[in-house]
Amino acid sequence: MHVLIVGAAGMIGRKLTDRLVADGNVGGREIERLTLVDVVAPASRDGRAEVVSADLAAPGGAERLIENRPDLIVHLAAVVSGEAESDFEKGYRVNLDGTRALLEAVRAADGYRPRLVFTSSIAVYGPPLPDPIPEDFQETPLTSYGTQKAIGELLLADYTRRGFVDGIGLRLPTICIRPGRPNKAASGFFSSILREPLVGQEAVLPVPDTVRHWHASPRSAVEFLVRAATLDGQDVGPRRTLSMPGLSATVAEQIEALRRVAGDRAVRLIRREPDESIMRIVETWAPALDATRAGRLGFTAETSFDEIIRVHIEDELGGSL
Amino acid sequence: MHVLIVGAAGMIGRKLTDRLVADGNVGGREIERLTLVDVVAPASRDGRAEVVSADLAAPGGAERLIENRPDLIVHLAAVVSGEAESDFEKGYRVNLDGTRALLEAVRAADGYRPRLVFTSSIAVYGPPLPDPIPEDFQETPLTSYGTQKAIGELLLADYTRRGFVDGIGLRLPTICIRPGRPNKAASGFFSSILREPLVGQEAVLPVPDTVRHWHASPRSAVEFLVRAATLDGQDVGPRRTLSMPGLSATVAEQIEALRRVAGDRAVRLIRREPDESIMRIVETWAPALDATRAGRLGFTAETSFDEIIRVHIEDELGGSL
Repeated sequence: MHVLIVGAAGMIGRKLTDRLVADGNVGGREIERLTLVDVVAPASRDGRAEVVSADLAAPGGAERLIENRPDLIVHLAAVVSGEAESDFEKGYRVNLDGTRALLEAVRAADGYRPRLVFTSSIAVYGPPLPDPIPEDFQETPLTSYGTQKAIGELLLADYTRRGFVDGIGLRLPTICIRPGRPNKAASGFFSSILREPLVGQEAVLPVPDTVRHWHASPRSAVEFLVRAATLDGQDVGPRRTLSMPGLSATVAEQIEALRRVAGDRAVRLIRREPDESIMRIVETWAPALDATRAGRLGFTAETSFDEIIRVHIEDELGGSL
Repeated sequence: MHVLIVGAAGMIGRKLTDRLVADGNVGGREIERLTLVDVVAPASRDGRAEVVSADLAAPGGAERLIENRPDLIVHLAAVVSGEAESDFEKGYRVNLDGTRALLEAVRAADGYRPRLVFTSSIAVYGPPLPDPIPEDFQETPLTSYGTQKAIGELLLADYTRRGFVDGIGLRLPTICIRPGRPNKAASGFFSSILREPLVGQEAVLPVPDTVRHWHASPRSAVEFLVRAATLDGQDVGPRRTLSMPGLSATVAEQIEALRRVAGDRAVRLIRREPDESIMRIVETWAPALDATRAGRLGFTAETSFDEIIRVHIEDELGGSL
């Protein structure tokens, strides 16, 4: 099969690439071709992958990407929440127009109906929010990013219903611990308050430690994507986007897990520096989601922050501190 | 004040125009200027109204419309459900691109933040549906029309939150009894099975009479729009679209009301002719909505089908059969 990853240069895209190259197949179907796309051509650590630089929202950009009719498209490309809020036009261009252009290109290709895995977000929900958020709860986002993802869910469902594509959307938890450098996501601190202290560096906590949020590791996120690639659409039904499982934890609980794994010295590296603009975004987010449907379909995530930290140490720090 | 009605040639647009001309004001503010827009220039029965032919989704179309900065924009323009289903591209162009172009034009106009009243629909909800549908229920439409309206709600809320426009969305019930000729809406029969027999003509019923649906008269719909034009946005909050009140009734209840008002002879003019394609659309629709928020904000509708039929006789048939 031919797999196309759009937004392959991002953190999840790179981890998914590594996973697919290691597996050599998706759900038992051999990967004969792997195309990695991003606005800047992603680096490939594997000679078999083709790397392409493309802008989905540019004229003809999406059409060119699907010219060779990949069997599986994983669409991860997005401007993150903080940037979609600070740059209104860029957020709509990438997150809405880019997604729609991809769907339109697939629709225009006669007799072509690939599996398309789309990553949505808990940011589609806006307060006041029940805890946990039921699967049938309204999407009234209070960020432009959340608005764009909610629109993506609607388009994905309609294009799937009309038979143009075979879409599955995943409402991802906040991914924690994100490896590497901080990005512009307002959620970045959830990772950095663990990631930096684990290697002896300072980190800034911009919100009170009572903030409760919904988390899963990068390893779980990749597993979600692989599972979504192989699900039977009949089992999903017309509501094509699933709330993914995660761990509901407060920042204080994150910090206590850090203390258990890395000691007081690590915890002392967290500097509290309240940031109103980040707080305003984060307080609109979900403390926990009901993910019953996803659970029935075999999606699972971590059940403690100690486990999330251990995954990070195994996957990013060579297995030990 | 300057009022702009987009989609003014439609049934609701014409009735709203008549109402505004009769009132001469909106919420006590004198109407100094009234601009009526549609793809075909609407006929004006009042010399004071300017009529304009325009296509919102065409380049520059929306910008020209708001050049004179109307204080109130009522955006009614839409391709109806049946047509949006049969002509995928036209539906997205008019219902999504047109609405977005209007919002973008308003955003681009510096220091301009009009009240924008947007008509959404119960078609944003898709089965399985609770009865009544709670106000916080997810929007998972099973028609392209419903998808486009749900996206309109999301855009309206985000543009309002960002301060670009002062939007209020109304999730309208099916409007019954629609006067005039049938249109391409799949819901058309709800009106025609009453409207035609009331004037001695045959009508076709394409669904079983057990179908339950949510209705309000054209007179109520116009009243909803006028009320939305004058609401205090603070009272509405960030969830900018309100489910409108209505009457939940089965087709059998509609027919019994017709019998009470116009007798057995009228009822015998209803010819049952099942239509699978209409049934497939209609069975995805809402039997009833919880409209508590709208009720608190002063929106009201009819409470019996006898009343809905009487409104039609008063407003369309000169007051008697």
